[in-house]
Formats: sequence, structure tokens, C-alpha cells
Amino acid sequence: MDDTRDIEALIDLMARLPGLGPRSARRAVLALLKKRGQLMAPLAQAMANVALNARDCMVCGNIGTSELCPICADPARATGEICVVEDVADLWAMERGQAFKGRYHVLGGTLSALDSVGPDELGIPRLVARVASEGTREVILALNATVDGQTTAHYIADALAGSAAQITSLAQGVPVGGELDYLDDGTIGAALRARRRF
Amino acid sequence: MDDTRDIEALIDLMARLPGLGPRSARRAVLALLKKRGQLMAPLAQAMANVALNARDCMVCGNIGTSELCPICADPARATGEICVVEDVADLWAMERGQAFKGRYHVLGGTLSALDSVGPDELGIPRLVARVASEGTREVILALNATVDGQTTAHYIADALAGSAAQITSLAQGVPVGGELDYLDDGTIGAALRARRRF
Repeated sequence: MDDTRDIEALIDLMARLPGLGPRSARRAVLALLKKRGQLMAPLAQAMANVALNARDCMVCGNIGTSELCPICADPARATGEICVVEDVADLWAMERGQAFKGRYHVLGGTLSALDSVGPDELGIPRLVARVASEGTREVILALNATVDGQTTAHYIADALAGSAAQITSLAQGVPVGGELDYLDDGTIGAALRARRRF
Repeated sequence: MDDTRDIEALIDLMARLPGLGPRSARRAVLALLKKRGQLMAPLAQAMANVALNARDCMVCGNIGTSELCPICADPARATGEICVVEDVADLWAMERGQAFKGRYHVLGGTLSALDSVGPDELGIPRLVARVASEGTREVILALNATVDGQTTAHYIADALAGSAAQITSLAQGVPVGGELDYLDDGTIGAALRARRRF
């Protein structure tokens, strides 16, 4: 029976998406089968379109559809500031924050001896060259506050020690809307150490 | 920026799948973007393939890729038994049970005055005609044990009252592996009333 095999193959592929297991993939495919015209065909088209056209920006590593991503191609974005993020997801999160008007460098991961991810895989030499050639004034390390993220941040800070750029990192403290009672001890300690005049 | 618009459009479509919200759709699309070659292109292809070829079986309402679904087209499946299910998902669940070797009738929903779903929308006249023309011996009502499901089951039983077919329904009782302490009172009552000689 070729037809159920096609549907099974689709379910298997869907089940490989994060957040979907075999059961929820089956449910998603059934919903797609019920809305073949309105949802399934446009989704297949949109996915094929992105799969065909998406490419990594040659400057910053962000995902776009041309050699330069929209941020690197935008003349309104300040060239003097580079925000270093682990992942495209983090870049999107920064953009949703609408607070940063400079450009990015997407590492694509963190340094990891176990997974043999070294500075070259993360494009750190490329970042150092870029900071020198663009005359970058400030490099903001917006890495996750995890052990791997902070290790990578320290490595990058060392690599950039010879450059003229100032190295900064995101502030640690109480999240907006956060309640002290629900915060972990580390965050409260960091927020206290970084306290500011009111 | 055309490129982010394409990606945003894909995220919006993905977010319309059951079980995915805007946040998990974004995560899924990012995972797809990272595996463009291995996952995104094949998934788009499989989806387009199914969207193009899937159609409802003209006899039972199951989904296949030709006029007859694989079950209706299979000469090894008994024609004397028809199992009535609400949805293709329920048909798949019955097939996973591997206990039923007959054919199906997929209603596509339940009777609902509020949503103006009547017998014609569920193909009940078609089922009655099919039972008469195929000389069906038994119609198994495998509808969900909900109020809507049981209302629909009673309507179908009434509609088939004039036919020669025996009308049965799935047994209610303790699920295999179920613990009494965790079962609701209704199930325990039903299991007690339907008790069998050991």
C-alpha cells in the first residue's frame, strides 16, 4: 500500500521536530490531512521555499536568503557594535527585545572539547578579524549564563584582548516582573553584587 | 526584508498545527533551518506529495491516495463487518490494535445541532445503503464514550434498525493494565454490570 507509506513517512519526518513525538506528529499530520488545501499545501510550499533559499550570512552567521542577512545589509544598523550570540534563536530573542541596534556574530554553539567544537568551528578568528577591520568600538557578549556559555565568553574576551574594542556582557540580575522568592540564590547574589544607586 | 518574511510565514503556518504554539513553532523552524538538507527539504517534499495525492476513500471515508483506500481495496479484509468510527485517527487506533479484520465507515465527526452537523454530513444514509447492498452481517459502533459519540451511536443504531445486520458496540470496562484505584466511578460501574464468568 503506497499511500499509507507516504503518510507514515511524513509522520516519521514530523516526529523528528523538537517538541513533537510520534504521537503528536501523528495528530499534526491528521490535522494537516483534514486541511489539505488551506494548510498542508501552503505549509509544504513555504517549507520548500525556505529550504531552497535559506543560507547563512557570510558576515555574521545569521540565516537569510542572500549572502548578507537583512541585519548586515541594513545601513541603519550601527557597525561599531557587535553582539555575540550562541545561536540564531538567541539573535531572534535579542531582536524581539528591540533594544540593540548594532550587528551580530552568531557562534552556532559553544566551545566543547567533548564534541570537538573549537574556536574555528565557532568563527572566532573571523570575529577577531572583523573587529579589527570594521573598527568595532564594543563587543557585547550575549551568551547564555551557563557554564559552556561563560567559558566561551571568557575565551572570546581573551582572543579580543589585543583589539581596541571594549568587551561587555549582558547584566545579570532580577528579571523584569520577577519575584525574589522564586529566584535562585545565584541570581540574587549576582543582583546584589551588581546593585546600582536608586 | 523578504527573507525574514518567508521564515515568519513558515513559523505562522507551523503554529497552526495542533500541539504547537508560536514559541514551539519557532523552535521547530529553527531546527529545520539547521538541518535544511537532511530534514527540511525531505519534509517539504513528503508534505507536498501527501497534499497532492491524499484523497478520501469514496466508500469508507478513510484517507488514501486513490479512489479506494488500502483497506477497502484489500480483498483479504472481510466485507461482512463494518466498524463505524468518528475519525481517521480512530481508524488508525483500531488498526494499531490489530484485532479487527473487517472494513470501516469513517463518520468524520459526531451529530451536533450546534455546529449543524446532521446525518448527511456524517454519511449515515451512505452507511445504511452500504449495509443493505453489501449484505453486512455486523456493524460495530466504535464511537468515543462521550455524550456526542453515544448520541451518534444511538442515531446510527436507529437508522440501521430495519437492516439485517447485527449492531454491536465496543465493550466498556477496565483497561488492560488499569488499576481500579485510578479508574473513574462510571467505568467501574460499567465493568461490574458487564461482568463475565471467570
